[in-house]
Amino acid sequence: MPAKKALILTADNFEDSELLCPMYRLLEAGYAVDVAAPAAGKVRGKHGYEVAAGLAISELTPAAAKDYALLLLPGGKAPEAVRTIPQALELAKAFDAAKKPIAAICHGPQTLISAGIMKGRTATAYKTVQPELTEAGAKTQDKEVVVDHNLVTSRQPGDIPAFNREMMRLLGA
Amino acid sequence: MPAKKALILTADNFEDSELLCPMYRLLEAGYAVDVAAPAAGKVRGKHGYEVAAGLAISELTPAAAKDYALLLLPGGKAPEAVRTIPQALELAKAFDAAKKPIAAICHGPQTLISAGIMKGRTATAYKTVQPELTEAGAKTQDKEVVVDHNLVTSRQPGDIPAFNREMMRLLGA
Repeated sequence: MPAKKALILTADNFEDSELLCPMYRLLEAGYAVDVAAPAAGKVRGKHGYEVAAGLAISELTPAAAKDYALLLLPGGKAPEAVRTIPQALELAKAFDAAKKPIAAICHGPQTLISAGIMKGRTATAYKTVQPELTEAGAKTQDKEVVVDHNLVTSRQPGDIPAFNREMMRLLGA
Repeated sequence: MPAKKALILTADNFEDSELLCPMYRLLEAGYAVDVAAPAAGKVRGKHGYEVAAGLAISELTPAAAKDYALLLLPGGKAPEAVRTIPQALELAKAFDAAKKPIAAICHGPQTLISAGIMKGRTATAYKTVQPELTEAGAKTQDKEVVVDHNLVTSRQPGDIPAFNREMMRLLGA
């Protein structure tokens, strides 16, 4: 049994509601949440919300995946930064190899594309990211939420109700 | 059985996360959500999020309470406007008289104070609103969430996980 603990990978200019609402949903259900960013400290969303990042992504090894029940990848401009960090990609690969839940919304799936784990997967993403997803070998669907085994993906803030519902279902909550 | 439908009373300069996260939580659980504001149209949060208000508060009569399972009062500067609208106060009174769930966070309880229904109730609110709550005759507690029969109150965005949990519990969800 993994700990009731989730890991968020993000950076400045995250889409505020896509980080806050799923994070609050996990906390509501009794999950602890760790936030990792390019540097430990505060990250600031596009709308000005600040969130404390307790961890630097570069400190995380793929072995960290065993400490968490879920990897959460919010959107905004943050994934543009997160996807350039090798440790983020190794970690995403480790979650997926262990068939652990991964929930990615909006631009969040970009990190999974850079990790090279989207080939043959059914998924969605923000509309401008959908072509990139298809190019990476995914079966892209334009739906509020797509579940493919351990992977939950959504397109945008308005999809959060469906995204959170399927994320919690995958956690068996 | 009331419909699975919730009513949000708000206005411009709402606290974005306090409206969005509980609204998304209700939608996740299959509730329809109506948003009412001083005028029908768009309302804009302090952080710039826009939400469509389908109803003008002045159109609502106290009888509308029977159409909803929950009254939700988010915070920010919105309650300063909402509390000046007589129909908002009559509606809050109607929800409370019918012992229907009311969830108010941050400055949201100001509307309940103006409605004159806080005397003898145990509740919380944003720290600067707590003295006003006490003056209105409430037993004020400085806690992340306070439940008093049909009434759930919280202080601030960081309390949303507890606020949503108790709101959903009150709805029997």
